[in-house]
Amino acid sequence: MPAGTATAISCPNIAFIKYWGNRDNARRIPANGSISMNLAGLYSHTQVAFGLTLEKDRLFLDGEAVTGAALRRASALLDRVRALAGVHERALVRSYNNFPTGTGIASSASGFAALTLAASRAAGLDLAEAELSRLARTASGSACRSIPGGFVEWRAGYDHASSYAFSIAPPEHWELTDCIAVISQSHKPTTSQEGHLLADTSPLQAARVSSAESRLRICRNAILARDFEALAQVTELDSNLMHAVMLTGSPGLMYWLPATILVMRSVQGWRRGGLPACFTVDAGPNVHVICPTSEAQHVIDRLNQLDGVIQVLSAAPGEQARLVTNNLD
Amino acid sequence: MPAGTATAISCPNIAFIKYWGNRDNARRIPANGSISMNLAGLYSHTQVAFGLTLEKDRLFLDGEAVTGAALRRASALLDRVRALAGVHERALVRSYNNFPTGTGIASSASGFAALTLAASRAAGLDLAEAELSRLARTASGSACRSIPGGFVEWRAGYDHASSYAFSIAPPEHWELTDCIAVISQSHKPTTSQEGHLLADTSPLQAARVSSAESRLRICRNAILARDFEALAQVTELDSNLMHAVMLTGSPGLMYWLPATILVMRSVQGWRRGGLPACFTVDAGPNVHVICPTSEAQHVIDRLNQLDGVIQVLSAAPGEQARLVTNNLD
Repeated sequence: MPAGTATAISCPNIAFIKYWGNRDNARRIPANGSISMNLAGLYSHTQVAFGLTLEKDRLFLDGEAVTGAALRRASALLDRVRALAGVHERALVRSYNNFPTGTGIASSASGFAALTLAASRAAGLDLAEAELSRLARTASGSACRSIPGGFVEWRAGYDHASSYAFSIAPPEHWELTDCIAVISQSHKPTTSQEGHLLADTSPLQAARVSSAESRLRICRNAILARDFEALAQVTELDSNLMHAVMLTGSPGLMYWLPATILVMRSVQGWRRGGLPACFTVDAGPNVHVICPTSEAQHVIDRLNQLDGVIQVLSAAPGEQARLVTNNLD
Repeated sequence: MPAGTATAISCPNIAFIKYWGNRDNARRIPANGSISMNLAGLYSHTQVAFGLTLEKDRLFLDGEAVTGAALRRASALLDRVRALAGVHERALVRSYNNFPTGTGIASSASGFAALTLAASRAAGLDLAEAELSRLARTASGSACRSIPGGFVEWRAGYDHASSYAFSIAPPEHWELTDCIAVISQSHKPTTSQEGHLLADTSPLQAARVSSAESRLRICRNAILARDFEALAQVTELDSNLMHAVMLTGSPGLMYWLPATILVMRSVQGWRRGGLPACFTVDAGPNVHVICPTSEAQHVIDRLNQLDGVIQVLSAAPGEQARLVTNNLD
């Protein structure tokens, strides 16, 4: 079957319960389950075109040709799609992010989720959401959470079939906003991919993992009940647990900058003062400040006054990955 | 036997392997052993005078009368000394620190070590070092490490008799300097005493404790072999492990300020650049930067250039607690 062309978009996501470390590095079966919210308005837009005349896969990211490890990672995902579809052509992939790479928002989740959906459709497949999530996971763990919409749980599972993400509530379930305090625009010294491999060098990782089930339950229930204070407490605890593991591995990873601490402390002070807001920090210095949408402008104004905050982006709960017709040509 | 008067001085200490959390809170039997260095040049100077005319114990700290919880803590220690000595008089205690309270250097270790020695001698006792260390421990855990000299290990033990500190190397064994970057002069929101009680609320404390024996061995061997790089790695790891537990308890304790992170990151950068220096942070924002004394001026100069560093104190390895004759009168 000659394959065709398809285009998909997908949002990044912010985890309330974090993914850090794998039970199986090769297949990205995570050490623990995680829960996240897709980020509306931010997206990767990815077109895949299989073609008989291409000698190898080609990848353009924001208009720039990509080679090396990043291209191999995309090709490995395309290989899985080709194997499923019985397609042999190479692909031309063009992906754009509508958020600047320099903002420190990871594009691997949204980029690989969009690539998974676009490539599978271009190859003639019509995969169920769970299968798309599994496929995306093999390229980037957190990408599996950008396939379903709204508030999403990634059940850790124990093998390829059992490890995928699903929606626990749609975007409109809870009017939350992620106010992203951008603190540094420089590249991180250690990528998440490398960091995951170090998780087990921390004497604390096993304790973090074995206590994750309880936090997943608290977080899931907080989302379902729209209980902000419960979400705030478990989200900050889980973020600190991940950074605790990062800080105590060999080598230790310190992702926090001085302004990261200033924002974290400020948010906790605001909450003690009655403003519902909580922080979570990924593998980088930026602070995601989660709050009810009714408080978002207030939170953004306060964040903009803090030393070291370069800009503040904001995002509501986002939709699932989806096909679009407006190709880039 | 009518009791008399005695005066003692004792140094604070900085732990390379930290004490955080107790196996037995009432007796301050710690969850894990710890290793520290006394800090020469900084000291508490404490005079104890038992007197028939006193109706109750009186305590003056830096010339100010102290009442409430702090006085009760000192009286409880004096009660133990009186019970050992068969003395019934109340005591007048006058204690001075030669380091400002506002510098954030804890005075409880040096203060209670000096009080233990002065009170026991004033009561007519001539206790062995181990017994002084045990007594000091009952008032303030880390005070037991300020009784012996130089580089000190506190063996956790399992009861009052087995839990005390001893010197593993004299002050002159290794020319190290602790360059103390003072970052805040405000009082800490949660005292160490309160913090110890929260240690077990962190899901990470058990893992920190169960892996402590290995770090104690590495640290002890690094000191005995004067292996700075080994000391640096285990000291920073252990400091981060303690703060990991603090950050992930209920409630979480964030002792770091933005400048704390700046100093920690800077020190790691200097070390990567070839300057032997490492950080350790107690239950407060100040950063203790340990380095070979040959590099101390260099480290102090660099620390003074960092934003948020108010002043830099420095201390070589200090002597044991000792009696002095120059009374305050």
